[in-house]
Amino acid sequence: MIGKLMKAIHDKKAPVVVGLDPSPSFIPGFLMKEAGEKCPAGASELETAAEAVWLFNRAIVDAVADLVPAVKPQSAMYEQFGIPGLMVYERTVRYCHEKGLIVIADVKRGDIGSTSEAYAAAHLGKIRIGEARVPVFDADFATVNPYLGTDGIAPFLKVMAEEDKGIFVLVKTSNKSSGEFQDQLMADGKRLYEKVGEKVSEWGLSSMEGNYSNVGAVVGATYPEEAAILRKQMPHTFILAPGYGAQGASARDLKPFFDSRKEGVIVNSSRGIIAAWKKEQYGRFGETGFAEAARQAAADMIDDLRKEVEL
Amino acid sequence: MIGKLMKAIHDKKAPVVVGLDPSPSFIPGFLMKEAGEKCPAGASELETAAEAVWLFNRAIVDAVADLVPAVKPQSAMYEQFGIPGLMVYERTVRYCHEKGLIVIADVKRGDIGSTSEAYAAAHLGKIRIGEARVPVFDADFATVNPYLGTDGIAPFLKVMAEEDKGIFVLVKTSNKSSGEFQDQLMADGKRLYEKVGEKVSEWGLSSMEGNYSNVGAVVGATYPEEAAILRKQMPHTFILAPGYGAQGASARDLKPFFDSRKEGVIVNSSRGIIAAWKKEQYGRFGETGFAEAARQAAADMIDDLRKEVEL
Repeated sequence: MIGKLMKAIHDKKAPVVVGLDPSPSFIPGFLMKEAGEKCPAGASELETAAEAVWLFNRAIVDAVADLVPAVKPQSAMYEQFGIPGLMVYERTVRYCHEKGLIVIADVKRGDIGSTSEAYAAAHLGKIRIGEARVPVFDADFATVNPYLGTDGIAPFLKVMAEEDKGIFVLVKTSNKSSGEFQDQLMADGKRLYEKVGEKVSEWGLSSMEGNYSNVGAVVGATYPEEAAILRKQMPHTFILAPGYGAQGASARDLKPFFDSRKEGVIVNSSRGIIAAWKKEQYGRFGETGFAEAARQAAADMIDDLRKEVEL
Repeated sequence: MIGKLMKAIHDKKAPVVVGLDPSPSFIPGFLMKEAGEKCPAGASELETAAEAVWLFNRAIVDAVADLVPAVKPQSAMYEQFGIPGLMVYERTVRYCHEKGLIVIADVKRGDIGSTSEAYAAAHLGKIRIGEARVPVFDADFATVNPYLGTDGIAPFLKVMAEEDKGIFVLVKTSNKSSGEFQDQLMADGKRLYEKVGEKVSEWGLSSMEGNYSNVGAVVGATYPEEAAILRKQMPHTFILAPGYGAQGASARDLKPFFDSRKEGVIVNSSRGIIAAWKKEQYGRFGETGFAEAARQAAADMIDDLRKEVEL
């Protein structure tokens, strides 16, 4: 799967993934109204809100599908609307696949043994029911939390091998308090994120495709110095880098994430693209032009990276 | 909420939570058949499997509700059956509440900022839609992964305060490889799980109810020595201890988890109770007596703890 992602990035010359994190505050009022009118009488508030999320996502995906290789729906933003929200999550994954996009399920799951196996089956694989093997949410990559160690990762490796899928393991996250544990200095002089990086690199050895492995890492674009260390330490680990734009990282900050072939990373932007219509810079598109604003913001981000990293 | 949990444990004299982790292999064949017959013609495999999970859960809950204070559904086991599975998860939470049980959602979510807020709203709180505030999955406690630091916990604290709910943060997990990162020795002589324990204790200060806080910790029953350290270090942190029975921990291993008042912990058993019918020890109940076998296993576990810990 990492080979497919790299080819898609190369073809579109865009190491960019659009985060589909449809927070209610990003959805224009007219779309909320439209959703209300589309829902049958007696629809619940969750159903109406989920319909608005669907209308929003579809328009965004239509607007950016030819520019970017991948999308990253954030499961929390769907779970918060309960069953109707999760139905829209499922529908969004399917729609993105129809549009030829690679889907990174940002689920940050982390558990052990048979439970981890169930998460892997739910999000990337197929679930066995009697003789049948049935796909469930069926994304291409999932994000995984490493805190429980190898027991939490091994079941994903199994599913990845069977289904040609991949994972991105949290190593150094983009948020301000990520250092509380991740930057802790060990007795041997290494930081915890380096220890995790070592393991991620090791877990990936069984799943190589060319220069890179299907076991990737999440490293925040907000931490370029740590990224430089990790890029060296994990030469075969593809990086998913959140934190560009709204969280404060610039294209310049992303330079150390790339390898010498100008490969090895995909940069996420969520708010900066899908809520671009709310920013002064894209105010000209107006509320009804929210999807065009997202397209312009994605194009601007791609240009920004191409220039700065000389892609 | 921790006060309610402690009262329920005290009233039933049972510091035991039943893990509702309905792996397909735990569900008797006759129930699968019954589910198939109950589903309308043309129901999908996921719908039929989810119906079997529901029939299984309901029978187990009916059989143990008067013995134990709480249940802990494991979200992976529902997610693996997609939307129908999550509908059964929702239904199970509601049914357990009707039966007077406290529900610990074992979701191990962990994210930051608005995403963490969305998880907190989805699993414990209410989601704002326009002027309305709508409950979603509405459990009483959720398990949370600490790897991202305070940014991931703070949104839960907010929801907990508004809704009188609680969390259990992963500190030292019950699995074999939990030491890979959690036991790492820091430059200051502490292990990572101790650092996390310190933070959990600190996070809990804003949410005290009597002797304990609504911010609890997950500490595996399989690690009694680490538990003894943590019990001292986190005197106000209630512990959720998985790993009894199937994972190898005995009632004796649990002694260090209790405080001097014989309080401060609730012990989980999943497989050992809900799949008791598959064990030789409970073979006399037969396949159709799976719920009675679960009741007996729960009663035996409670006795075991009462004797060993002298409750």
